[in-house]
Amino acid sequence: MQLGVCYYPEQWPETLWADDARRMVELGITHVRIAEFAWSRMEPRAGVYEWTWLDRAVTTLADAGLKIVLGTPTASPPKWLVDSMPEMLPVRADGTTWNSGSRRHYDICSEPYRRECLRIVEAMAQRYGSHPAVIAWQTDNELGCHETVPSYSKAARARFQTWLARRYETVDNLNQRWGTVFWSMEYASFDAIELPNLTPTDANPIHLLDFRRFMSDEVTSFHREQVDVLRRYAPNADMLHNFMGFFTTFDHYRFAANNSIDVATWDSYPIARTEVIALSEEDKARYARTGHPDVSAFDHDRYRAIGQGRFWVMEQEAGPVNWAPWNPVPAPGMVRLWAYEAFAHGAELVSYFRWRQAPFAQEQMHSGLNLPDNTLSPGGREVARAAQEITQSDALTKLAQSGPAPRAEVALVFDYETQWMFEIQRHAKGFDYQTLAFEYYRTLREMALDADIVSAHADLSGYKLIVVPGLAALPAGFAKSVEQSSAQWVIGPRTGSKTADFAIPAQLPPGALQTVLPFKVLEVDSLRPTLQPTTTFNGVTGIALHWREHIETRDGLDVLARFDDNWPAIVARGHVRYASAWFDAALHRALLEGAARDAGLAVTHLPQGLRVRRRGEITFAFNFGATAVDAPAPDNARFVLGQRTLGTADVCAWIAA
Amino acid sequence: MQLGVCYYPEQWPETLWADDARRMVELGITHVRIAEFAWSRMEPRAGVYEWTWLDRAVTTLADAGLKIVLGTPTASPPKWLVDSMPEMLPVRADGTTWNSGSRRHYDICSEPYRRECLRIVEAMAQRYGSHPAVIAWQTDNELGCHETVPSYSKAARARFQTWLARRYETVDNLNQRWGTVFWSMEYASFDAIELPNLTPTDANPIHLLDFRRFMSDEVTSFHREQVDVLRRYAPNADMLHNFMGFFTTFDHYRFAANNSIDVATWDSYPIARTEVIALSEEDKARYARTGHPDVSAFDHDRYRAIGQGRFWVMEQEAGPVNWAPWNPVPAPGMVRLWAYEAFAHGAELVSYFRWRQAPFAQEQMHSGLNLPDNTLSPGGREVARAAQEITQSDALTKLAQSGPAPRAEVALVFDYETQWMFEIQRHAKGFDYQTLAFEYYRTLREMALDADIVSAHADLSGYKLIVVPGLAALPAGFAKSVEQSSAQWVIGPRTGSKTADFAIPAQLPPGALQTVLPFKVLEVDSLRPTLQPTTTFNGVTGIALHWREHIETRDGLDVLARFDDNWPAIVARGHVRYASAWFDAALHRALLEGAARDAGLAVTHLPQGLRVRRRGEITFAFNFGATAVDAPAPDNARFVLGQRTLGTADVCAWIAA
Amino acid sequence: MQLGVCYYPEQWPETLWADDARRMVELGITHVRIAEFAWSRMEPRAGVYEWTWLDRAVTTLADAGLKIVLGTPTASPPKWLVDSMPEMLPVRADGTTWNSGSRRHYDICSEPYRRECLRIVEAMAQRYGSHPAVIAWQTDNELGCHETVPSYSKAARARFQTWLARRYETVDNLNQRWGTVFWSMEYASFDAIELPNLTPTDANPIHLLDFRRFMSDEVTSFHREQVDVLRRYAPNADMLHNFMGFFTTFDHYRFAANNSIDVATWDSYPIARTEVIALSEEDKARYARTGHPDVSAFDHDRYRAIGQGRFWVMEQEAGPVNWAPWNPVPAPGMVRLWAYEAFAHGAELVSYFRWRQAPFAQEQMHSGLNLPDNTLSPGGREVARAAQEITQSDALTKLAQSGPAPRAEVALVFDYETQWMFEIQRHAKGFDYQTLAFEYYRTLREMALDADIVSAHADLSGYKLIVVPGLAALPAGFAKSVEQSSAQWVIGPRTGSKTADFAIPAQLPPGALQTVLPFKVLEVDSLRPTLQPTTTFNGVTGIALHWREHIETRDGLDVLARFDDNWPAIVARGHVRYASAWFDAALHRALLEGAARDAGLAVTHLPQGLRVRRRGEITFAFNFGATAVDAPAPDNARFVLGQRTLGTADVCAWIAA
Repeated sequence: MQLGVCYYPEQWPETLWADDARRMVELGITHVRIAEFAWSRMEPRAGVYEWTWLDRAVTTLADAGLKIVLGTPTASPPKWLVDSMPEMLPVRADGTTWNSGSRRHYDICSEPYRRECLRIVEAMAQRYGSHPAVIAWQTDNELGCHETVPSYSKAARARFQTWLARRYETVDNLNQRWGTVFWSMEYASFDAIELPNLTPTDANPIHLLDFRRFMSDEVTSFHREQVDVLRRYAPNADMLHNFMGFFTTFDHYRFAANNSIDVATWDSYPIARTEVIALSEEDKARYARTGHPDVSAFDHDRYRAIGQGRFWVMEQEAGPVNWAPWNPVPAPGMVRLWAYEAFAHGAELVSYFRWRQAPFAQEQMHSGLNLPDNTLSPGGREVARAAQEITQSDALTKLAQSGPAPRAEVALVFDYETQWMFEIQRHAKGFDYQTLAFEYYRTLREMALDADIVSAHADLSGYKLIVVPGLAALPAGFAKSVEQSSAQWVIGPRTGSKTADFAIPAQLPPGALQTVLPFKVLEVDSLRPTLQPTTTFNGVTGIALHWREHIETRDGLDVLARFDDNWPAIVARGHVRYASAWFDAALHRALLEGAARDAGLAVTHLPQGLRVRRRGEITFAFNFGATAVDAPAPDNARFVLGQRTLGTADVCAWIAA
Repeated sequence: MQLGVCYYPEQWPETLWADDARRMVELGITHVRIAEFAWSRMEPRAGVYEWTWLDRAVTTLADAGLKIVLGTPTASPPKWLVDSMPEMLPVRADGTTWNSGSRRHYDICSEPYRRECLRIVEAMAQRYGSHPAVIAWQTDNELGCHETVPSYSKAARARFQTWLARRYETVDNLNQRWGTVFWSMEYASFDAIELPNLTPTDANPIHLLDFRRFMSDEVTSFHREQVDVLRRYAPNADMLHNFMGFFTTFDHYRFAANNSIDVATWDSYPIARTEVIALSEEDKARYARTGHPDVSAFDHDRYRAIGQGRFWVMEQEAGPVNWAPWNPVPAPGMVRLWAYEAFAHGAELVSYFRWRQAPFAQEQMHSGLNLPDNTLSPGGREVARAAQEITQSDALTKLAQSGPAPRAEVALVFDYETQWMFEIQRHAKGFDYQTLAFEYYRTLREMALDADIVSAHADLSGYKLIVVPGLAALPAGFAKSVEQSSAQWVIGPRTGSKTADFAIPAQLPPGALQTVLPFKVLEVDSLRPTLQPTTTFNGVTGIALHWREHIETRDGLDVLARFDDNWPAIVARGHVRYASAWFDAALHRALLEGAARDAGLAVTHLPQGLRVRRRGEITFAFNFGATAVDAPAPDNARFVLGQRTLGTADVCAWIAA
Repeated sequence: MQLGVCYYPEQWPETLWADDARRMVELGITHVRIAEFAWSRMEPRAGVYEWTWLDRAVTTLADAGLKIVLGTPTASPPKWLVDSMPEMLPVRADGTTWNSGSRRHYDICSEPYRRECLRIVEAMAQRYGSHPAVIAWQTDNELGCHETVPSYSKAARARFQTWLARRYETVDNLNQRWGTVFWSMEYASFDAIELPNLTPTDANPIHLLDFRRFMSDEVTSFHREQVDVLRRYAPNADMLHNFMGFFTTFDHYRFAANNSIDVATWDSYPIARTEVIALSEEDKARYARTGHPDVSAFDHDRYRAIGQGRFWVMEQEAGPVNWAPWNPVPAPGMVRLWAYEAFAHGAELVSYFRWRQAPFAQEQMHSGLNLPDNTLSPGGREVARAAQEITQSDALTKLAQSGPAPRAEVALVFDYETQWMFEIQRHAKGFDYQTLAFEYYRTLREMALDADIVSAHADLSGYKLIVVPGLAALPAGFAKSVEQSSAQWVIGPRTGSKTADFAIPAQLPPGALQTVLPFKVLEVDSLRPTLQPTTTFNGVTGIALHWREHIETRDGLDVLARFDDNWPAIVARGHVRYASAWFDAALHRALLEGAARDAGLAVTHLPQGLRVRRRGEITFAFNFGATAVDAPAPDNARFVLGQRTLGTADVCAWIAA
């Protein structure tokens, strides 16, 4: 439970550095991230390194007692480098080449650029790898941001062909598994395969999916190449990358696998995120100054899994940002609240973006802990308060020093490939898998249940309730593990609807899950908003949205609810429930509540905007709502932070006596 | 009144073929279309033909007693061909070149590609032209689909220049008729003329119109070249092309002229079509599971004209499809209903797309008569029912064997060039000519009137009521034929508003029609939705939408209705009525009803969602509505199908005693 | 107070010319603009000039007594010229090259094209520069129209680099002032600098701003080069360019500086303009047939300043036009009203577009004073009436012969660079500076106040009330002049929020204005529409829209109103008021009314749709509203035009006795 900050010494007069470092420490900050955009200062001309300024910055910060996270500068290649290899620029889906002048102007598939990256990374690592204050390294910055991935370059095409050759071995095998007989798409060799853009109508879905898999692997290997260099020079430092919220361009589980990272760190901007994701207008309005109560939590829980228990917030918003359509000032208290929220979900560190608002260039309207005139910003003052509170509380200090958050009793499976498959084939406009997963997640949270978000490949033993909001292609053995599980399961629509080759399973959906749930999907009802099949379950009436399956049941299946036209809505066998549709919130709640109770979990219906999260013996409560509410603490609770009644943007924490 | 199906033997194990053929026949299917996407199987490498698999498929189907429609495979050129001549790829209006990877990735103006097409077509025709089971040939597939026409390629530019030189003979003539003196657009030679895309502001409308005329001719000649080859080898087979619904990229009358086709066949997807055309949200919601009751009828009637009485549905949807924003499951009964609807409008054959849903590739979410697990789909079961009903009814069997549907008493003129002209120059956002024509058509149908849809160049003698929803440029002699006609005429706005060179007529609109209707259009009132000029006609009050003309009347014209600001709304002289505006539904009905009664036609106001259609002595009734209604059969009707009271999606048919 | 018309003799048979000229004079027209699109007729082939037709046209018009405005034809280069230098075509932001086939198909940065322009201009000037009837020259046509400026060509890049080198002298200076250390954007030399398009995320705002400044200068120099040639041959003629309404692509003050023009002329299309600018749907509906009552006035007042008192309407709509989404017929009377409105605001001349509607080419749906059949159009008849009225009124005739309109008592500062800066950095979707300026302007007009629109660099002494709706970067000395002013000031949000280098001022906004208004802006609250901070001022309650500042006040500042969450809404010191937010109409009115009263100005609340404007001793009143209203004339007013009660689209004028 520590605090950090992002700092750009190269952007400020050197005369300010020592005072900045002193004030950081004074504020309670222990970690500082630097250097991730400073390539043009490290190497102003090809091969001419300038380390002395960075040496002095590192020394100044280290002397003040700060631990340093060094970023590799590969997200912003300098102009001289672009000019020496213009083919390194990324290419958009429409065939246009991106230009320099901002950041991320590189093709992740460019081998010449990758070599340049390893050169600058190795030079940095040689210089700072053994510095005792440099305790972690971050590669690049927000890989995949700004839609420069996928890149549709010639380099991408060549590497995609190689990737396909490795995956399929023979082109006949690819032709067969891709079904290229359809529309005469057959290939005579791997090098005949194009990228799947600019086709007059839909490209083959497996072509699109494999391209996304390939690009995910490209992101992963781009990072991994740097990590391999860094570990040679900094064997004891933590390896990091700062991921983003609600971001699914690459498979984060695969990215993190094989010790590619030591800690999952992510960039949390709850208010702007709330504005840009697919929430209802009502929710966007209600939470415009607080962020939706589950938006950051969702990624805290997701990145905790990705970091195998260890996660940080690398960039936490400290006030209004600059990149959403509207960027309101957070409600007073939110900057403090977000710090506790991260800790409650298990974060080791919350690091703010950024120390001081830059008055110039692209992010001048992005706030920091200090205003451009070097006085603490309103958000900075809230951070100071939180830091002081933690120091003054034995219980919080003890929690801050504890290890990873313990496992929850509920698991929610989130799968990146499912996201890709249903983006490629929404079939119903508005069907978005991550949004459906989020709907299930928020419903759990509204019932005061803590959840882990896990991979479909994770070991799920030990959980009492397992929620699968949808899982396009079942991993091998998944059906068997469902069958043998002692947990209660809630499985959503489209599960088992595809093979790994993006085909409909031979036995029809839900594929291998038919051994557990004896039914098959005859047809799929893609629902325009005016089509609202209605059903009632456990006394709750609601509708299907976006998607409904017409399922033919077989013996042994219980139909728990039917739609008004008699098609089954919820079916079950034993400990496994299946929702044949995307339901509205009321039905999702009824479905999950029944399963939770059967799993022996205590369900509390929280007032709107209130959320709780347990970590160890401490329970935190957060009020994102517009009105004051009481936290659901037991009568004998011992409050270690705040008090029972919470105004807007307030937080409290207690230990049950 | 026969049934067919689209089948892709190359996509299935050969072991299934015989069983498939047997089950087709068992279901009542007589025709099977194959091969139209199989180029890469017919010719896996340049010049290496593989016919044996197709020989076996043809034999298997023929042996089962099926009649075969062979499709030429030119809609999906194989990758080796594209790689050998990449300049054959089509170019988008924005200058980007389309890529392979789906279908229709060819430039229809590419002469090298056209040569390749004729080569493969001739090879096919040589092999199968005299096969007794091959009773028809279809060229390509859905020409113009996916907006690859127009193509903005260099080849298109060269051929467009040649086309212009043929049309205008001298460039001075072109300059004069195009009015290129405007904005200094004059050309010194035909080869200076560019394609009309990428201009900073509007291109010259006649430039745009001639480009559309040229492209229409390109589509026509692309087809015709293949037909000329095919007729040499298969002189007795029917020549076909499968057109699309609500599709106006080329002039279908000109396409079909000079025996270029023997039967007009088209692809009917009523639910998705209803979703994507310019209907009101209310109509889209009401008919989401049935399709709008006039959407397929409109094209049945249109293609009956284009085929000079002979038309088929080549692809009929048999369940949910995959290409609209939403793709709901049809209401139970609709698949059966659509079969009877097509027959009632005169179809010789209804052929389903497709025999079995493919579990892989682009159309895996498109249903067929069978599910991927080879059991009959819900739609397949309805087809089986309809087939059985027809067999069991003497009256329907007799009708099925009868010739083309007789002429209707009402004609509605639909003109492709008018569509192009008003797309090029909408002048009022939302003005769409085809939508206006459809509004007139649906109004006729709501009054239980059967209509023929005809070309402006057709012989219109014999009709009692002729509706011209708008006709930009009058054919020579049109005004005279109106004047001399014994029919009642209803003529809509913008008629006679342009010359064939896309100019305003010298005497102002309605141009030559001023001899019949003595008025001129002073100004045009392009109406934002909040501007709603009101008028009352025959006791019905309604408004103008999109478009209103300020007309100056002369002697001899009767003003039947005026707008609230005194401008004439409906004028007439003798048997000719003119609507000076696009009216709402109530006014259109009042206008048409008056004319129909004057024409001596019986008008019946049908309940919402109910439609009737006569063919010979049999009258069919179809219920697209949400509630049960009685068909308007006389008391002594003898029902040859179903009964008087129709639930949703039900159909009946009777003979008046 | 004279009338003109735009005429295209090259588009009509020469036999019509003399009659056209005669009828122009008969109608009361004194000026005729010709030739601005006739390059292909002046020079049909490279170097081959054809002047004789133009000689005859000039003679015909001059012989009829008309004064001639000659347009240089550079807005529509002929095809042979484009073919000889295709690199002269402009390039879009997405990298695509525009094509010929309409107009404005030239890159304003193309030096070869500029040379060609000077060649044709010099040839014209030699031939007609000394013709006594040619009293003015217009360069090109509507510079910047159709978004061909900015051009993103190679020529633009090269000239931009040169422009930057001139501005910054050294690249180090540029790097420092641009803050290129951010994201490693540093440049080693000026020729490394790219155009700021196609960046994966935001380009540096100062990079974007300098590019807009550069492009504004390019437009200016393009015009100026022609003027320099023209003045050599026509030293006594007025130099003109026809500007557009609500158009901010270049800085019109800088364009007009240094005698680059003698009269500011602009093109007034009030109905289409009302449709396409950011007005509420309610206003668009209300004024669909009249144009919004302040839309033309705003530009009359703006161009009066740009022409330093002298302005014309070069193109005035005479009926429905062709380029808006909807183009309704104006309410009867509006064409007459617009003429008086222009005169009331000080126009020397109102010239109509165009003499006769062209039946062919791109503008065939654009009306003129005559219909294509050469009878007067409805608008033409209104112009005839107005011309007759002026002739018959001594008072109006006298006014027509008077000099420029006297200065108003109210000034509203409008600044083009502010528009660019807030377009580059809206920060709140929907924040548009010109719209805010217009909101302040309409509020003044609803209170019956005449206003001058002025540059931030203008001498503002003598005004009683000065309104600054927002001014991103303060000119040097601006704060001091505010402080020392004897006027009342109303200053809007974002004023002083940026330096000229597009950075946040070191002391935070409002920068140098802190000496006058002692506060600083801590944070900016960018407001989605559902966020509506409320405040009450002078009994009026309203909300903030789009934008609100959280300001920290210091001693000496009065807080006149606070928002419901206690942040200051309106603050003041002495004669200077500051609005910390974009307010709704009610609050803007309360704010301005208070200031106007303190300034000693008489405020009258006009009924909806009524507007007044004084010129000399005459006051005009205009009714844009739907119902009849009385003009606010004193009881003893002597009416010199019309009468007190005004129906829709009516106008009256009086002299106070």
